[in-house]
Amino acid sequence: MTEPLPILHVCTTCRAGLPLEPGQTAPGQYMYDAVSALLGGTPAVELRPVTCLSSCSSGCAAAISQPGKWTYLLGHLDPTLAPDLLAYAALYAAHRTGTVLPSRRPASLARMVLGRMPDLSPQAAAQEIAA
Amino acid sequence: MTEPLPILHVCTTCRAGLPLEPGQTAPGQYMYDAVSALLGGTPAVELRPVTCLSSCSSGCAAAISQPGKWTYLLGHLDPTLAPDLLAYAALYAAHRTGTVLPSRRPASLARMVLGRMPDLSPQAAAQEIAA
Repeated sequence: MTEPLPILHVCTTCRAGLPLEPGQTAPGQYMYDAVSALLGGTPAVELRPVTCLSSCSSGCAAAISQPGKWTYLLGHLDPTLAPDLLAYAALYAAHRTGTVLPSRRPASLARMVLGRMPDLSPQAAAQEIAA
Repeated sequence: MTEPLPILHVCTTCRAGLPLEPGQTAPGQYMYDAVSALLGGTPAVELRPVTCLSSCSSGCAAAISQPGKWTYLLGHLDPTLAPDLLAYAALYAAHRTGTVLPSRRPASLARMVLGRMPDLSPQAAAQEIAA
């Protein structure tokens, strides 16, 4: 059976703490578009837009999840970091629990992790996840 | 069928950004113990310890989740806030999507939400959750 891809949720309404004029595109939408443009016909992640990750003061924000792994909440992103974000997503996909130590991430993403949450899917008891 | 309780994950290893002497109990463990002591024989939440929520600079940290709802990552907690945290958990449990606006939370928890993540359980497509 094929392993499901990691899901990358990008907050498309994120203002990244900035004021937004009426009709102006949110930085989060630019972030989503930048990631989407990089993904080819055989994407390494499933990209999903999401409306508000409640990380407004730490945006642009995203989250990455995959069954059986920690879900990571990511902030301090911007569209120029889309290639590094996808490089990180590949490392996340390759690790059994999704743990990517700061020393293994692209340097531009050093401040990125806002937190993580245990996997809640039925097949994995939360307390069985180990870093 | 009885609705499953919200799960409150409390990070028991959290140092809350402080140095910790060898053998000293982590602030996160005190946080967990304070919540545990308040829960009676018919708890309103299922309390689970978790090892590192990767929110070390924003601790003490916790997360709350329930099938079909947003999972919220919570920080800037301390053991004295355990009663307010359980009051918040009751509001979370009562709301269809788990959304508790800042104006409805105990004032002591104003800075608490670090972010939220879509429900990933099979019964709820992430994009169907609306605030």
